[in-house]
Amino acid sequence: MKSKDKVTIYDISKKLNISAATVSRALNNNPKISEKTRELVVKTAREMNYKQNRLAQALKQGRTNNVGVIVPYINRSFFSSVIRGIEEELTPHGYHIIIGQSHEEVEIEAEQLNALLNTQIDGIFMSVSKTTQKTDHIKKVLEEQTPLVFFDRKIDIPSVSSVVLDDYKAGYIATEHLIKEGCSRIAHLSGDINLEIYRNRFEGYKKALKDYEIDFNPEYVIQVNSKIESGMQAIDDLWKLEEKPDAIFSAGDYAALGAMQELRARKIKIPQEVCVVGFSNEPFTKYMELPITSMDQTPLMMGKIAAQVFLEQVKETNAYTVEKKVVLPPELIIRDSSNRKLLKLSDVS
Amino acid sequence: MKSKDKVTIYDISKKLNISAATVSRALNNNPKISEKTRELVVKTAREMNYKQNRLAQALKQGRTNNVGVIVPYINRSFFSSVIRGIEEELTPHGYHIIIGQSHEEVEIEAEQLNALLNTQIDGIFMSVSKTTQKTDHIKKVLEEQTPLVFFDRKIDIPSVSSVVLDDYKAGYIATEHLIKEGCSRIAHLSGDINLEIYRNRFEGYKKALKDYEIDFNPEYVIQVNSKIESGMQAIDDLWKLEEKPDAIFSAGDYAALGAMQELRARKIKIPQEVCVVGFSNEPFTKYMELPITSMDQTPLMMGKIAAQVFLEQVKETNAYTVEKKVVLPPELIIRDSSNRKLLKLSDVS
Repeated sequence: MKSKDKVTIYDISKKLNISAATVSRALNNNPKISEKTRELVVKTAREMNYKQNRLAQALKQGRTNNVGVIVPYINRSFFSSVIRGIEEELTPHGYHIIIGQSHEEVEIEAEQLNALLNTQIDGIFMSVSKTTQKTDHIKKVLEEQTPLVFFDRKIDIPSVSSVVLDDYKAGYIATEHLIKEGCSRIAHLSGDINLEIYRNRFEGYKKALKDYEIDFNPEYVIQVNSKIESGMQAIDDLWKLEEKPDAIFSAGDYAALGAMQELRARKIKIPQEVCVVGFSNEPFTKYMELPITSMDQTPLMMGKIAAQVFLEQVKETNAYTVEKKVVLPPELIIRDSSNRKLLKLSDVS
Repeated sequence: MKSKDKVTIYDISKKLNISAATVSRALNNNPKISEKTRELVVKTAREMNYKQNRLAQALKQGRTNNVGVIVPYINRSFFSSVIRGIEEELTPHGYHIIIGQSHEEVEIEAEQLNALLNTQIDGIFMSVSKTTQKTDHIKKVLEEQTPLVFFDRKIDIPSVSSVVLDDYKAGYIATEHLIKEGCSRIAHLSGDINLEIYRNRFEGYKKALKDYEIDFNPEYVIQVNSKIESGMQAIDDLWKLEEKPDAIFSAGDYAALGAMQELRARKIKIPQEVCVVGFSNEPFTKYMELPITSMDQTPLMMGKIAAQVFLEQVKETNAYTVEKKVVLPPELIIRDSSNRKLLKLSDVS
C-alpha cells in the first residue's frame, strides 16, 4: 500500500485552483466556507477518489467516540453480559465499544491497554487479570487523561471509579443457604485469592461459618481455576479426607460443574448427600438436567452502571475529582443442586 | 480535558532553545539526532510532563499493529474460539486484536467497522451479520486499502479472501448419521437462510435425504434462531403434525438444547424415540447428563488459517491480486443424544 498513489488535498486544490486550506475547511464542514464551494470540493474529491485520513480527522476533533473494554476472557457469560450492558448504555450516546482480552496475563493486559490507547480512545472499562499486581500500565491511562472505570475486578488506585459486586455478602449468603439446607461440612472451592473478588467470597464464607458456630476447617478449602477439570480434581482431593464434605460452595460455575460431574461419577447423590452452589449464573447452570444453584452477579446492570459512571465523568469539567465506588448486591438463584426442600422425605438419605 | 493545558513540542523547544523539528526528531528516535540531544530532550519532556500524541505517531508510522475482528456475538463459543485462533497466530507477529460485535444488525456492523477503520487498523477479520445484504460498508474497507478476511459467514466480494466451513458437507454427514441410526422422519431446524452457511447446511440435509431415497417433507423444516426457546417452539410445532419426526437435525446447538428440553418435558426418550444432532459443538453439549451430538467447526483452526491468510496478504507487494478461499472440513462429534448403538437392544423402542 503505497501512500504516494493517494490523492491529497493539494491535488484537489490544484485542480480547482483554490488553496489547500480552503479544500481542507470545505471537507471538514467549516462554516466559513460557502455551501457552493463546499459542494464543489466534495464533488471533486469524490471524482478524484480522495480519501480523508481518518486519524488526521480524529486528531483534529480530539475524540474518536470509541471506548475500549478490557476483560480477562470474552467467552464467559459474565464478561460478555457486562459488555452488553455497557453497549446498551453508550450506543445511544454515539459511542462504539471495542474489546480486548488479557487472557489473565498482565503483560497481555498492558499491551492491549496500549493498543487501545494508541487508537486515541475516549475511555477505558477494565476488569483486571488474575496476575495484575503492578499498576504502571494502568497509571499510564490516567497520565494520558483517559477516563477509566473498573468493573468486577478492580485495583485500588485513588480517583479511579469502580462498579463491583458485594462479593463478601455473596460468599456469606451462599454459605448461609447451604447451612440452612442442613449442611455443616461445607467445602469452598476458592478462586485465586490474589484477586480481591475471590478473597471477599472466601471471607464471606468464613464469616457465615462463624456466625452459625461451625468450625472453619482449612482442609475444606481448595484453590481452583475456572476450568471444569479443577473442580473434578478438588472432589478427588476432598474425598481423600476422613470427614468428607456434605456441601460444595464453588467460587466459579465451571469448577462447580466439574465437582458435580465427579460426584456423579462416584454415585454421590446431589443434593441429598452433597449440596452444590456455584458462582456467576453462567447460562449452562440453568440448562442442566440437574440445574445448579448459582450466584447472579447482575452483569447487565453492572455494565450499565459502569457506563453511567463514565458518562458522568466525561461530562465533568474537572473529571478527576470524581470517584465513584458502586457496590451491587448479589442474588442467589437457588436450583436443584442445593435445594433439598424440593425433595420428598424418602429421597433424603 | 482541555488540550490548551497540554505541553507541546514548542514548549520543549522554547525551554531548550532548539527547534521544534529537532525536538520532534529526538522524540521519534530519528538517527540524525545525536544521542546527547535525544537524552536531553527526552529528559526535559518527561520533566515537563509532555505526552506524545499517539495518533500523530501512528500517522507518521503508517501502521498501528492493531487488527480488528467483527463478529455477530462474542458470547458464542464458536466466535470466541475463532478469535482465540487469530490471537494465537498474530500475537507473535506483534499484532493486537481488538474486537467489535454487530449483534446481527447490519447498521451496527457498519458502525463498528467504521469505528475500527477510524482507529487506523492494519486489517479486518469479519463474520457478517444475519441482516447483511448490502455491502457498501464492506466495500469501504477495500477502498481504504485495508486488508480484509472473512471467516465462517462471508459475502461474495471479488478479491476478498475467506476461511469457511464446508457447511454443505456438514449438513450431509449430520443427516446421513441420523439415517444410519435408523431415522427416516428427520426434521431440520434451520437457521436464517439469508445466510449462506445455513442455506448450505439445509442443502446438504436435502442431498443426504435424496441419496438415501427419503422423501423431502417441507413440513419438517422449521426456521429457528439461536435461542433455546425457538428450539422448544419448533418441537411444539412439529408435534402437531400427523407423522411426528424421529430425528432432529438442528443448525444450531441452542435450538437443539431447547428441542431436547421440550422432548424431555413430553417424556419422549432420546435417542430411543428421537435422535438429536446440534451444530457448533458449544461446550455445554459435552457437559449435559445426556451429551448432545454436534458438529465441530474447528474454530481455533479457522482463526489460525484466517490469520495466516492475512499475514500472506500484508506481505504481498500488490495485496489485492491475492484471493484465497479456504474451506475446512467439519467433524461430527457423536454423543448420546443420537447414538442408539450405545444402547442395549431392550432400551430401543
